[in-house]
Amino acid sequence: MNATTQASQASVSEANRARILQHLYHNGISSRAQIAKALGLTPAAITKITARLIDAGAICETGDLDGIKNRRSIGLKLDTSLFHVIGVKFARSLIEIGLFDLAGRRVCLEDLPPVSEDSIPATLDEIRDRVNRLIAADDAVVAVGVAVPGPYLRDEGRTAVVSSMAGWRTVNFTDEFAGAFPVPVFIEQDARAGALAHYLFDPAGTCEHLAYYLIGEGVGLGVIDDGRLVNGAQGAATEIGHVSIDVEGVPCDCGNVGCLERYCSAVAIHDELRRTGVVGDVDGLTHAQACQRLFDAAADGDEAACALVHRVGRYAGYGCVTILNAFNPRRIVIGDIVARAGAPLLDAIREVVAERAIDDIARATDITLSPLPTDAAVTGAAAVAITQFLEHPSVFFGDV
Amino acid sequence: MNATTQASQASVSEANRARILQHLYHNGISSRAQIAKALGLTPAAITKITARLIDAGAICETGDLDGIKNRRSIGLKLDTSLFHVIGVKFARSLIEIGLFDLAGRRVCLEDLPPVSEDSIPATLDEIRDRVNRLIAADDAVVAVGVAVPGPYLRDEGRTAVVSSMAGWRTVNFTDEFAGAFPVPVFIEQDARAGALAHYLFDPAGTCEHLAYYLIGEGVGLGVIDDGRLVNGAQGAATEIGHVSIDVEGVPCDCGNVGCLERYCSAVAIHDELRRTGVVGDVDGLTHAQACQRLFDAAADGDEAACALVHRVGRYAGYGCVTILNAFNPRRIVIGDIVARAGAPLLDAIREVVAERAIDDIARATDITLSPLPTDAAVTGAAAVAITQFLEHPSVFFGDV
Repeated sequence: MNATTQASQASVSEANRARILQHLYHNGISSRAQIAKALGLTPAAITKITARLIDAGAICETGDLDGIKNRRSIGLKLDTSLFHVIGVKFARSLIEIGLFDLAGRRVCLEDLPPVSEDSIPATLDEIRDRVNRLIAADDAVVAVGVAVPGPYLRDEGRTAVVSSMAGWRTVNFTDEFAGAFPVPVFIEQDARAGALAHYLFDPAGTCEHLAYYLIGEGVGLGVIDDGRLVNGAQGAATEIGHVSIDVEGVPCDCGNVGCLERYCSAVAIHDELRRTGVVGDVDGLTHAQACQRLFDAAADGDEAACALVHRVGRYAGYGCVTILNAFNPRRIVIGDIVARAGAPLLDAIREVVAERAIDDIARATDITLSPLPTDAAVTGAAAVAITQFLEHPSVFFGDV
Repeated sequence: MNATTQASQASVSEANRARILQHLYHNGISSRAQIAKALGLTPAAITKITARLIDAGAICETGDLDGIKNRRSIGLKLDTSLFHVIGVKFARSLIEIGLFDLAGRRVCLEDLPPVSEDSIPATLDEIRDRVNRLIAADDAVVAVGVAVPGPYLRDEGRTAVVSSMAGWRTVNFTDEFAGAFPVPVFIEQDARAGALAHYLFDPAGTCEHLAYYLIGEGVGLGVIDDGRLVNGAQGAATEIGHVSIDVEGVPCDCGNVGCLERYCSAVAIHDELRRTGVVGDVDGLTHAQACQRLFDAAADGDEAACALVHRVGRYAGYGCVTILNAFNPRRIVIGDIVARAGAPLLDAIREVVAERAIDDIARATDITLSPLPTDAAVTGAAAVAITQFLEHPSVFFGDV
């Protein structure tokens, strides 16, 4: 397959460098012999490539590996604390900026004030300033990752449509950020960024068939199939939020009817709370705050609140059944604002999956809430940068 | 990515052999120098690998390439007429067996009598007999490809559920066919097989982001994203026929509600024709025959028939919008029984896509009827075998 892809000698070298970096990232300290064996490369090739990576400062030698005393037992290490990345996460009205090391450990995190349509230009300036200040203060920063709401048209650098906040549609993220920093910047759809974060940092281990189901201000999905992101021709695949669950349903800004995100996003919940008054006046609150008030009321046993959380969970469950049928992942991780509803939400989702998914497939699929801290969103943006660092070392260390 | 995949030296050699075969398959006669340049391999490596492939009879040398007269201008060729494959296509009640060469040219084609629940064991015997007779009569046959309805659980060798014909659910295709022939056999979900057929044989050229939308006795989908099939953890991804378009809709055998295939498959159309009598009595007909009668009546201008084709096309269009949002392919090719309705169906599908898909994405997507002949279904089964031949040459020629 991929008949038209033409590899060059240089890209073969780059691929081998990347594989060595990734091996050290995922497996920790390893000897040259261990790497050679795992990657099917000759010892001579490993010696040559690792020597250059050491010269470039990408990796370093450690002392002898435990219990082994000979030349080949010297360990090689990718020190994940030596390199930092900045993650910037855009939601419709929320923006977070975080500084992380390569292992996804947070160094610091800042929230920007909520964004409205007319504050977008000022917000973009503010982001550039803050990121540049972070870079100026920290020599270890090697890249910036940006996570934006989908559908994100990667080649064009802009979002095709953002429900509830059309202003972002006119922003070209590539133009706004490409030359803005002294380090490279990489932009990705937010749920796909979340999938990368769980691929890299999930304490449950690396899963090669992973879906990250983002239920926040929008509803999004990132899918890793056999170790690779499902991207689509324009980088706009896996837009679960605009998959219809009712072809006669509620119209959506995207042109479709009955879009999933019209039923279970934080925006949809906020609208419902305004309409029904289930938890009192929610007019001055952000979408996240309104949702939190609902989840707190449900946790306190309020019947109407519990019923609404259950209903939202059922809708999220319909989306989950579609994810199973469309992508057949091994693990579905649910995150972002609405996931903070916790067990009652997850129970309702699992109830729907048990009722409606194909048994053989449902039984083989784990559905969990994200184990990453609540700032997982911005961690995804960092994961975008870290993934590029591990896949394209020549961008960071030259053609070593 | 794919951190846990461990390549060995042997698999690197196999990958290079496969890349050379694929290059010759897609680009025709090429010199060693052209292949070396295209694949980023050294001339020495090309010389070594091609010598072995020539010895094994996989490829051959041709005379000097046009206009070039030196040692490096000798052409290499994968003669697609030298190797044959057999394709076996299962639908719910239709089974076809075809003999093809590597370019997808049909040598012969046989239809089996329609299958009912109680004739399944006899049918399996009949298939084994016929395929073995074809192999015995033709030394060029190198492999058998089998296309089966989804969701097909590849590791287990069986279909998870088959709407309208539960009997096939108890059949383990791997057990039935794995040792049945003197050549290797490969089994794949039917719509994925169709995607491979269009990837290999579409006269419009190779498309790296391709969806094949099968609307036949079932509704299925095969997606090639960036040159690779989207498989899912169990090989059961892209089951568009069981994605719900109405969470309060018609129940399906799979457990879900409002499954797309309940609205636009040949089975659904046959049911509707029985219920409404639009084209008279259709009780004794196969699903394909009943559909053809509808399409003929519509072509003759029958108003009720036209309205039904339009309605079916609208439903197929809702599925198309989901395909755009879920997979963002560059090209969607529609095939199988219902595609024979032709332009009126395609027009209704495009009408729905224009209304409901995200503009930026709809504009970048070609939606067409399959340009392959009406036996495209069984061509897909052949494509499964051909894809394996091109990707795993050591299975056919040993570890050359």
